[in-house]
Amino acid sequence: MELHEAMYSLRAMRRLKTDPVPEELIWKVLDAAIRAPSGGNRQPWNFIVVTDAEKKRKIGEWYLDGWQKMYGAAQGAMEAEGDQARVLRSADHLANHLAEAPVFIIPTVRASGVAAVSGMGSSIFPAVQNLMLAARAEGLGTTLTTLHKVHEAEVKELLGVPEGVETMCLIPMGWPKGKFGQGPRLPVEKVTYWDGWGETKAKG
Amino acid sequence: MELHEAMYSLRAMRRLKTDPVPEELIWKVLDAAIRAPSGGNRQPWNFIVVTDAEKKRKIGEWYLDGWQKMYGAAQGAMEAEGDQARVLRSADHLANHLAEAPVFIIPTVRASGVAAVSGMGSSIFPAVQNLMLAARAEGLGTTLTTLHKVHEAEVKELLGVPEGVETMCLIPMGWPKGKFGQGPRLPVEKVTYWDGWGETKAKG
Repeated sequence: MELHEAMYSLRAMRRLKTDPVPEELIWKVLDAAIRAPSGGNRQPWNFIVVTDAEKKRKIGEWYLDGWQKMYGAAQGAMEAEGDQARVLRSADHLANHLAEAPVFIIPTVRASGVAAVSGMGSSIFPAVQNLMLAARAEGLGTTLTTLHKVHEAEVKELLGVPEGVETMCLIPMGWPKGKFGQGPRLPVEKVTYWDGWGETKAKG
Repeated sequence: MELHEAMYSLRAMRRLKTDPVPEELIWKVLDAAIRAPSGGNRQPWNFIVVTDAEKKRKIGEWYLDGWQKMYGAAQGAMEAEGDQARVLRSADHLANHLAEAPVFIIPTVRASGVAAVSGMGSSIFPAVQNLMLAARAEGLGTTLTTLHKVHEAEVKELLGVPEGVETMCLIPMGWPKGKFGQGPRLPVEKVTYWDGWGETKAKG
């Protein structure tokens, strides 16, 4: 698949079939993930693949609780029209069906002194984007989620993740029910500034 | 360019020519960046493009100071052999020549309540990876750097970035002196665990 086609048609796929994903494809998307950069090429990452039904069920319960805590107040907004309400309804569906995804991928990062300055996200989310692009090329749907972090201690205990290692996100992956396509975005001219905050210019 | 070719040949390009980058290409890589996901599709990002020589010079000085503070102790390690020493020497070159890059791109994120749980990196570094992949497809070199954050307050003041907005990284971009190619990585089997920490399996 051409790079720009992958980038422009990769949207969050929150409704997934329960059909299994061949292990070969899981390796393939992970192998693309680790091509991403990390600070000083330290590769502070691990990737925990969860396919065990009982572990997915528990994590799904914690995720749903996280969703309700963070977005419970948005119930009204879900019934509105427009892109934002559609995202909320789709995220609500995901929160109620997370464990049905055949595969969870949970990237982790080992903390370091440098991370204290720059945050640890810069050494894992480029890899996550590679993973999701590689999945897109295989026709596999993914979503970048972080709400399991409301119960991160429990998730870490369940999976045996040691101290000093943080789970950075949770990516449910599977064959999508919907179609890939371009998501709604503000135009690039509105969010780009030149040499100083607020200094927009027309796209030439 | 094919997706996997871009992902597998994208390495940090820390030695850049001073030749300018056409504005059209800057727009193109930014337009690819904003196709990435963000929490709830809130798109909390802005991208500050810096081409002003004096501003690049000042930021370059702060960056060099950050480099010396964080990695000054690594001077000895730079003279060793091996991949890690090569990365350090190349990063040392970048720190001493940052302002020569024709373009800096500084992505920013508006803080939010959700970010307090998940960190803000999940809503910007996927976009940064898209940007670097799109640059790769044009033959433009980039590096994901974060050491300006040692002097973030000064960088924000120089660029007029308001309170509640954080600069997330600094990407020097330009035509590379070296060649694209695959960087060294630990094998994916070593960093992948199945259903629990430490549970490796052979790649089928």
